[in-house]
Amino acid sequence: MESGEIEALTYDVFGTVVDWRGGIARDAKALLGGEKGLSLDWNAFAIAFKERSKMAGSPEEAAARAGRSIRADDLNRDNLRETLDAFGVAPDTLTPAEFDWLAKAWHRLDPWPDSVPGMTRLRTRYILAAVSSGNVALLVAMARRGGLPWDAILSAEVTRYYKPRPEAYLAAVDMLGLEPAQCLMVASHNDDLRAADACGLRTAFIRRPAEDAEDRIEDARAAPGVDLAVENMVDLAERLGC
Amino acid sequence: MESGEIEALTYDVFGTVVDWRGGIARDAKALLGGEKGLSLDWNAFAIAFKERSKMAGSPEEAAARAGRSIRADDLNRDNLRETLDAFGVAPDTLTPAEFDWLAKAWHRLDPWPDSVPGMTRLRTRYILAAVSSGNVALLVAMARRGGLPWDAILSAEVTRYYKPRPEAYLAAVDMLGLEPAQCLMVASHNDDLRAADACGLRTAFIRRPAEDAEDRIEDARAAPGVDLAVENMVDLAERLGC
Repeated sequence: MESGEIEALTYDVFGTVVDWRGGIARDAKALLGGEKGLSLDWNAFAIAFKERSKMAGSPEEAAARAGRSIRADDLNRDNLRETLDAFGVAPDTLTPAEFDWLAKAWHRLDPWPDSVPGMTRLRTRYILAAVSSGNVALLVAMARRGGLPWDAILSAEVTRYYKPRPEAYLAAVDMLGLEPAQCLMVASHNDDLRAADACGLRTAFIRRPAEDAEDRIEDARAAPGVDLAVENMVDLAERLGC
Repeated sequence: MESGEIEALTYDVFGTVVDWRGGIARDAKALLGGEKGLSLDWNAFAIAFKERSKMAGSPEEAAARAGRSIRADDLNRDNLRETLDAFGVAPDTLTPAEFDWLAKAWHRLDPWPDSVPGMTRLRTRYILAAVSSGNVALLVAMARRGGLPWDAILSAEVTRYYKPRPEAYLAAVDMLGLEPAQCLMVASHNDDLRAADACGLRTAFIRRPAEDAEDRIEDARAAPGVDLAVENMVDLAERLGC
């Protein structure tokens, strides 16, 4: 890959930039463990919560499910209710304010330690755009809290499509005023990179701790055909000469 | 106005945050004056170029005009062609690359001197969102060049509506996950503030140098009913306790 052709890095966010499993497990434990005295497998709770958010599927399905919106914040309220139910937590265990707080745990996910240092270096040379299923308010809150240096948030709410639909990648590229080959999709998930590659974007795989049993097999290493495989965001900055 | 209720500042950009007239006049003069030896009224040229971009009107009209896109970058190519023609500049005076460079003068507008210091202070406490007719690529380029600290770019390309259509303000508020009264629209144009006020947003008028003969009368001071009138962005930061 000639890094000189690249103008923008289009980023997956959950798992690639921030640690969703650790953040959800931390907040679930703080509320349900600490204050409520429950003892659950917090990692399993986080994975179950995330698994439901993955299953939201197409925007049409998501809109039908949520009434009107494809917004992750709205879906996550439904997903939390189902997750609590699956773990045997009674609905009245949480006050409405506590429920809201935990449903919005996605706003408080921490960046991986290398994310901000690496992205700050990368931003000196490249446009950094979040291309994520998270909604704008969620991604703004997360960025402000963690110091993520986005130039643009091109979420599903903006592009009108969830990844891995081609429109999600192509609308983001189009809004940046670029050609697909001028964009490098950065993700820790091979399915995301395969879909971006099919749209003509360049691809960078970033190795992250395994997210769950299934992903551990698939995403332990870059699939063949990825343009670049890196250990972390600082490594990516070095590979791209920043 | 109770500033404690405000969560986000929604910003007009052209004229409020950056100096469009000075920037366009500067680049027109550099290219048409310097290299081509033409002698035009550069301020009048800038005003004529901007006036055409104002006349783009509704997204439907804009889309019809540009073929498919409501993108400011595309409209500005048409607007530059018409402006050059109106000033008697022959089409072959500029090479295609020179034409592109001048059509994208909007990417290179400088912030007013108080914009970055004031907004940097305001951002410590408030979400800062651009609510502008400019397209995403244009606003990203301008922000990167001038150091504008946006949390989100909610341009017409994202909201699907130009101001002063109510949907432009309300879609931006909705994407921020807020109520209209939690957003303070910041603009140097009373018509923008009136439209935001009608949607339930709070309003802050910022005094800027007169943009043209018509605006000079209308926008020399805040119209009655504006929640806050300030001298510049640093003044706004102080008024909002940042």
